[in-house]
Amino acid sequence: MAKGRPLIAGIELGGTKCIAILARGPDEIEDRVQLPTTRPEETLSALEAVLDRWSGYSALGIASFGPVSIDHGSADYGHITSTPKPGWAGQDVGRRLAAHTGVPTGFHTDVVGAALAEARWGAARGIADIAYVTVGTGIGAGLIAGGKPVDGLTASEFGHFRPVRTAGDDWVGVCPYHGACVEGLAAGPAIQARTGTPGPELAADDPAWDLVADTLGQLLHTLVVTGVPRRIVMGGGVMVGNDHLFPRVRRAMTRSLAGYVALPEVADAETFVVPPALGGNAGPLGAVVLGAQALGAELSSSFTAA
Amino acid sequence: MAKGRPLIAGIELGGTKCIAILARGPDEIEDRVQLPTTRPEETLSALEAVLDRWSGYSALGIASFGPVSIDHGSADYGHITSTPKPGWAGQDVGRRLAAHTGVPTGFHTDVVGAALAEARWGAARGIADIAYVTVGTGIGAGLIAGGKPVDGLTASEFGHFRPVRTAGDDWVGVCPYHGACVEGLAAGPAIQARTGTPGPELAADDPAWDLVADTLGQLLHTLVVTGVPRRIVMGGGVMVGNDHLFPRVRRAMTRSLAGYVALPEVADAETFVVPPALGGNAGPLGAVVLGAQALGAELSSSFTAA
Repeated sequence: MAKGRPLIAGIELGGTKCIAILARGPDEIEDRVQLPTTRPEETLSALEAVLDRWSGYSALGIASFGPVSIDHGSADYGHITSTPKPGWAGQDVGRRLAAHTGVPTGFHTDVVGAALAEARWGAARGIADIAYVTVGTGIGAGLIAGGKPVDGLTASEFGHFRPVRTAGDDWVGVCPYHGACVEGLAAGPAIQARTGTPGPELAADDPAWDLVADTLGQLLHTLVVTGVPRRIVMGGGVMVGNDHLFPRVRRAMTRSLAGYVALPEVADAETFVVPPALGGNAGPLGAVVLGAQALGAELSSSFTAA
Repeated sequence: MAKGRPLIAGIELGGTKCIAILARGPDEIEDRVQLPTTRPEETLSALEAVLDRWSGYSALGIASFGPVSIDHGSADYGHITSTPKPGWAGQDVGRRLAAHTGVPTGFHTDVVGAALAEARWGAARGIADIAYVTVGTGIGAGLIAGGKPVDGLTASEFGHFRPVRTAGDDWVGVCPYHGACVEGLAAGPAIQARTGTPGPELAADDPAWDLVADTLGQLLHTLVVTGVPRRIVMGGGVMVGNDHLFPRVRRAMTRSLAGYVALPEVADAETFVVPPALGGNAGPLGAVVLGAQALGAELSSSFTAA
């Protein structure tokens, strides 16, 4: 079971709880600690105490709630940039924990973390080019190309483009910025605002699901035309609690693509759009992948520079 | 002027003409040959004769009209996959010219080639994360992240997502697959179908431009929320012939983003969305970058494997 793999500390920093694991992979988790996410100083000190107690790890990965800065060239790299969560806006997480541990440290969004974990060990195991979509309180999508997050100026905000509307539907949506962007039409709060029932609890035969499926089908269509994904993993509370949604979303995507991108990977919608496989461990395991990639980059540059 | 840079052969394979250059960069072009694109055998043999005549180049790059296969793991890598152009559907270009020359060979779409050239030497010089959009007979967009094309399953088809429609406009569009996708609404043939006048010739005060600008603003909005570009270069016959379109498209993008992705790079729309700088040499210079990157990958792997 690849005994030689380095031991990595992985932290999922969530909006309500943090999960820290010391692991080489999903089958070799040496320790797992769960903490509530409270005020920043209290939370980060508690995580530092866990990291101090652990030994033998070669790298640290952090998959964080956001929005975060992932721009290495920016002064706020590793920070949570803006959040309504008290005290966390502008909080440095990545650089602080990197300095505290002194090991190579990877830092990214929780969505990209889950994407990396599903690509490495989960529902897209062994596939280097994937998208991971989460549909819950918000909608996020992370692209992985060649096994690495597709990064540039900022973390993906792919839930916030404006999809074409279903004919006859002109509901204004709930995104405070865009109204009827994908998130404003199909995330849990949007479903609740439209129907009076939270997304995870809405009956499978409610007609609102067709509108949600149409919108999510547009999200998948747009991800397909980026050219990147060979598979799309869809998770989050709205998807996981509503298995009936998968066939509807697949049909909406296929109908919308209308034969475009005629490749077998996309044409077989049942294997192209799949639920996640790692459950509650996707976050911290994604952080382990981020740590491993940071270690890999460090080793690669230090040995070639030597 | 970086005399030590390797000499590269770059070929832009266009639908009507091919341009081949032997160069180290835009200021060091040693030879430039233009040929008509006719039947495949005739065209490729003529290009091979040019490559045979040249000497001293370390790599070859090809930026081709498409659709093409860029999937290295696929049997049809380097081929033009489907095109109405007589004889070219299924034609191998990349592997044939690589075998003929025996040098490391890069192969990609003409859009990605232009993107790489503009990022290396043109309007996005020195910026590693960009998007390049062409609006002409079709609409294409290429993403460059960390200086490399964002690749996965297939080349980008970003002109083919379905944007939200301008209120009150329900024209069906001209894309044979999607009707009213971005290309079906805003490429040259769409403008001609809607107005009776080809896009490059339509008067600046024609009201159809507002609809075109809205659609292109949606394209830019969606590119922004990928998180990748620090700058977007827009070229192609419709943009280049209509300077009035730039301020309109920038305004449409800014209005649609509505303050989302509040970073200075995006907020300053005049420096964020710019025309290309390399003119007719973007294609072959992009091919030179593709060749240089193929050489870089070869050197990197051969020296670490040694």
